[in-house]
Amino acid sequence: MVAAVEKFDLVVLGGGPGGYPAAVRASQLGLSVALVEAGRLGGECTNYGCIPTKSMLRVVELLSSLSKLPFVKASYDLDFGSYMDWVAGIASRISEGVGALLKRYNVEVFNARGAVVEPGVLELSDGRRVGFSKLIVATGTEPSSLPGLEFDGVLVHNNRTILGVRRKPSRILIVGAGYIGVEYANIMAKLGVEVHLVEVMDRVLPVMDEDFSRLMSRRLSRMGVKVYTSTRVVEVERREGYVRARLSNNVDVEADIVLVAVGRKPNTANLGLERLGVKLDERGYVKVDEGMKAAGNVYASGDVTGPPLLAHKAFAQAIVAAENAAGLKSVYDARAVPSVVFTDPELVSVGLTEAEARSLGYRVASTKLPIGGLARAVIEDSLDGFIKIVYEEDSKAILGIHIAAPHASELAGEAALAIEMGATLEDLASTVHPHPTISEALQEVAELALGRPKHFKVGR
Amino acid sequence: MVAAVEKFDLVVLGGGPGGYPAAVRASQLGLSVALVEAGRLGGECTNYGCIPTKSMLRVVELLSSLSKLPFVKASYDLDFGSYMDWVAGIASRISEGVGALLKRYNVEVFNARGAVVEPGVLELSDGRRVGFSKLIVATGTEPSSLPGLEFDGVLVHNNRTILGVRRKPSRILIVGAGYIGVEYANIMAKLGVEVHLVEVMDRVLPVMDEDFSRLMSRRLSRMGVKVYTSTRVVEVERREGYVRARLSNNVDVEADIVLVAVGRKPNTANLGLERLGVKLDERGYVKVDEGMKAAGNVYASGDVTGPPLLAHKAFAQAIVAAENAAGLKSVYDARAVPSVVFTDPELVSVGLTEAEARSLGYRVASTKLPIGGLARAVIEDSLDGFIKIVYEEDSKAILGIHIAAPHASELAGEAALAIEMGATLEDLASTVHPHPTISEALQEVAELALGRPKHFKVGR
Repeated sequence: MVAAVEKFDLVVLGGGPGGYPAAVRASQLGLSVALVEAGRLGGECTNYGCIPTKSMLRVVELLSSLSKLPFVKASYDLDFGSYMDWVAGIASRISEGVGALLKRYNVEVFNARGAVVEPGVLELSDGRRVGFSKLIVATGTEPSSLPGLEFDGVLVHNNRTILGVRRKPSRILIVGAGYIGVEYANIMAKLGVEVHLVEVMDRVLPVMDEDFSRLMSRRLSRMGVKVYTSTRVVEVERREGYVRARLSNNVDVEADIVLVAVGRKPNTANLGLERLGVKLDERGYVKVDEGMKAAGNVYASGDVTGPPLLAHKAFAQAIVAAENAAGLKSVYDARAVPSVVFTDPELVSVGLTEAEARSLGYRVASTKLPIGGLARAVIEDSLDGFIKIVYEEDSKAILGIHIAAPHASELAGEAALAIEMGATLEDLASTVHPHPTISEALQEVAELALGRPKHFKVGR
Repeated sequence: MVAAVEKFDLVVLGGGPGGYPAAVRASQLGLSVALVEAGRLGGECTNYGCIPTKSMLRVVELLSSLSKLPFVKASYDLDFGSYMDWVAGIASRISEGVGALLKRYNVEVFNARGAVVEPGVLELSDGRRVGFSKLIVATGTEPSSLPGLEFDGVLVHNNRTILGVRRKPSRILIVGAGYIGVEYANIMAKLGVEVHLVEVMDRVLPVMDEDFSRLMSRRLSRMGVKVYTSTRVVEVERREGYVRARLSNNVDVEADIVLVAVGRKPNTANLGLERLGVKLDERGYVKVDEGMKAAGNVYASGDVTGPPLLAHKAFAQAIVAAENAAGLKSVYDARAVPSVVFTDPELVSVGLTEAEARSLGYRVASTKLPIGGLARAVIEDSLDGFIKIVYEEDSKAILGIHIAAPHASELAGEAALAIEMGATLEDLASTVHPHPTISEALQEVAELALGRPKHFKVGR
């Protein structure tokens, strides 16, 4: 016998960054809302992604900054198990915050899996049924594995299971040098772990601008990370307490744990979406229009709609999906969504690269400023970085901003605002940025592009 | 006998933030340029202000952040003398960078004092004479003292001499709770020094929005700083190795050193400016028009033109002065110059406060968001702060942004850009800010003002 159907104006499938803000927004707009999430609220970002890694990174940055100060004799003992407990605690606190927020907005949360069994009806894994007028699919992605490197949660980890490790490894093999792999390489190297980073493409951070790849290769090498590009893992032996891997360049690597970070796949199977007319692309991501609509009364938001997989992009899509589900007209505009890699230094990419702009037909120019001339970079002893601005040659309208610098993540919003508002080089150059900050680089690179930098020699 | 006159298109009097960028810009525009500076290049900011204090602050922030991590057993020994040497080294490095920059721009630097002896001629303290077609006065300010608290550089310090201290004080008395006093109170308290902070006005940071004063009072108290507002120092006894001060509230304070930070006075005496028709205001600051022109062929820029005394404001004025001196038409627009206090948390004020906007006749509203709900604030364990946005009620145009948060200094540029570009709440709300950062507060406060925050409950 099937439990009685409780019906909501909107049901949100998934409690991550693509889901919970949609529930909040729909509630603000007066809809009755339920949210279905089998795991922890906050999703991948809060529980297994940005929040724990940024918590880990903050600590290693503090320790490594301190160790570079010549006048501080510091000895410290980092209890790795307690460190990871603390990281888990921050994620839990933020996850619980999402729960409290949903409660205050009267969103009914079902802690279960859900699948569409007929139009307008979702069946939960506990057997209950929930009715909906509108559905938002925000089920996200999960980590992909590689043949021979299937996750076991003991020796071979993904971004989720590695957070359960409580004994500090002496050696780690990281497979995949995308942003997750590179962030973990930073963390582990700064914790004193021997790091081997393997990437099948010919450079680290292969989807980013090559300037970032070059910088990060150099930084990783300085941290002692062994980087193998154009390299695959060809054979893996799982032994007692460690792994022995043979790489395609004939190097043998031994490691206490392996982190596989080679991509993600969408959670779109077994949801009954075909019953609602939802279409998937060839990789399994939900196809949506600019209003995040997937089919008649179905919307989708966040990672499940495809790359780039970013929490803040998911937030924005969730709001659009919720507003359209509530009958407003709302459009998702992907023009200036920042990509951020939280490494040392932080990397930010907003808007178009020079190559992208050119391929879109713009007459484009770009100007690059090293950050070493900034007073703040000297103060922070972080001189290796740059800012690059891409602009239309005639109008001087800013098309893209790319930054490698400490605190770059906090500058990404300004870069996005400049592009969103159609700012020109002159607008950015004539905006007074406070001294001494890294943000001055945004002003100074625009001044340099206009031939009038304050702290940099132009010409010969 | 007087040495032969070498003549330049432009002579800049002063090598600080109001001076050297003017020399650089004028050189870019093809002028022959000389710069006259008796002290160290870089001026007050580089040598005695922002650069050394921010260097000191960075270190105490690292140490205090680290001490709050429950899983790190750290013991460290900070050698105060070497710390202050390191601070001085950073200032020297940046000062030398200014020298190298001026050299590359073929600016001739005279290490001397200069005074106008007749129109078009400056006499240097070494007896040489330098001719000029145009003059830029950028001589800055110097610290004011108080009766009974005259600087002796041993017990009673100003912001310059305190940098020469090499033995860590056990107790410090800070007179004046403006931004210098409050920044030093932060630094000293976090170094474990007993701090007494005396302010004659009824609140700390008396020229800032009251919300900042309340927050900073609370923070200082938590750091163990003893704050005495509406209080004066009535009597001071200088004893062997310490000072005994009687306050107007009848409290007696003993301190190893005293820092007096009660204001500044302009360096406009004995420059011969009256010979050029330059006018001073009642406080002695040079009067200028919006093109930074002080008289016929004389311009002024930076602190010598009056408060607010800010390096980045001086930069902007220097460029305007140089461009006009070179025959371009350039205007200094003070609409959105950020004020920053580098404390824990950092304080930023850009554009108008609500009271200022009202007094200018705007129909104005404001919205305030606590930062405690931001994931990044949780990660950084820095929950006590806010962001306040001031906007025109009808147009929703942003008039002011006021932030108390970690990394706020790096957000000031975005706030200034928003105001400069005439951004509305909608512009800021629809700009995607990366997660997890403090910059999300800028987006979220705009969303809150529009009734649609993602992470905050509106209404009841």
